[in-house]
Amino acid sequence: MEKKGILVVVSGFSGSGKGTVMKELISRYDNYALSISATTRSPREGEEHGREYFFKTREEFEKMIAEDALIEYACYVNNYYGTPRDYVEEQLGLGRDVILEIEIQGALQIKKRYPDTLLLFISPPDAQTLKNRLVGRGTESMDVIESRLSRAVEEAEGIENYDYFIINDDLNACVEEVNELIRGEHRRVSRSLELINEIRADLKKFQ
Amino acid sequence: MEKKGILVVVSGFSGSGKGTVMKELISRYDNYALSISATTRSPREGEEHGREYFFKTREEFEKMIAEDALIEYACYVNNYYGTPRDYVEEQLGLGRDVILEIEIQGALQIKKRYPDTLLLFISPPDAQTLKNRLVGRGTESMDVIESRLSRAVEEAEGIENYDYFIINDDLNACVEEVNELIRGEHRRVSRSLELINEIRADLKKFQ
Repeated sequence: MEKKGILVVVSGFSGSGKGTVMKELISRYDNYALSISATTRSPREGEEHGREYFFKTREEFEKMIAEDALIEYACYVNNYYGTPRDYVEEQLGLGRDVILEIEIQGALQIKKRYPDTLLLFISPPDAQTLKNRLVGRGTESMDVIESRLSRAVEEAEGIENYDYFIINDDLNACVEEVNELIRGEHRRVSRSLELINEIRADLKKFQ
Repeated sequence: MEKKGILVVVSGFSGSGKGTVMKELISRYDNYALSISATTRSPREGEEHGREYFFKTREEFEKMIAEDALIEYACYVNNYYGTPRDYVEEQLGLGRDVILEIEIQGALQIKKRYPDTLLLFISPPDAQTLKNRLVGRGTESMDVIESRLSRAVEEAEGIENYDYFIINDDLNACVEEVNELIRGEHRRVSRSLELINEIRADLKKFQ
């Protein structure tokens, strides 16, 4: 019997490096599936339908909302972003742990609907490093940096809703730590009741 | 600043091999401290005061109870067993994770008093293996084996009170898994609030 996979939501400050951590995690271990979001925004240079995003028209997206085909969605800067249900449920059923990289609002929608979702928050080791990483990209105006910083302040307010707070100081260590946390989660009593009940039933037979 | 250690209670079926797992864990990693119980029972051949147990008279033990010097205690077969508070709190304060190997009744006393205690339950992979391990020692009468089995049935009823259910199929894998679970527990949001609040305060300064 295949054990059901765990739904894992990963959030983190812009500049936390969470995207790189997740890509590396997926490439090292084959028990993970990375969910791909649907969006109504236009593809950017180099983005591919079905790889970065599923690109949808507004009509298509609203039809998905109406049919409850998304497990969470949100609107940013006049574009929809959401997580298609089919892929997530199919992969969980196959026993794979499904990873969603989403913002806190979506994370809370999912936790409400799937209470056994594991919520991870990834952070740089301190605020100065966070600021340096945001500035260090060298591609954004100070305005954009300031707006990211103020979003970081808001995001930081929601961390208590998460299960684990993980520092991304060293990429390799962080990837291993995330993998260990998810693997450990499979040992949680509430996720092992089937096995526990089998052992209980067997023990009674021996008496 | 030294991070506070985690209090870890390990229980498991007789024959689960939990004692061996803990000894191996302590010998591999130096961030753990194994708590030593106090008892009023007589030392057995080869047992040493301060190594296997702190051997106490009934009067001494009852004085410890009266002075609240034990974080849990119980009476089995007319002898007291308990966990001295001093050592546990001293080691936690030094940032070491303190491991107590105790029965479920004691585990629940401790969880009530220290709600952030991590409770681990160790089990053989299935009931047949458990029975084989109990019988396999070859040193006990069938009566003793039967009584252990029926205690196992009782213990199994309490597993929902624990956080993690860990299978001891392979000693090495089990030791590493326990280590990862405890290490992961340090990343729990509720145990990282000091760091989270520092980052929050720093972020606000940058705005």
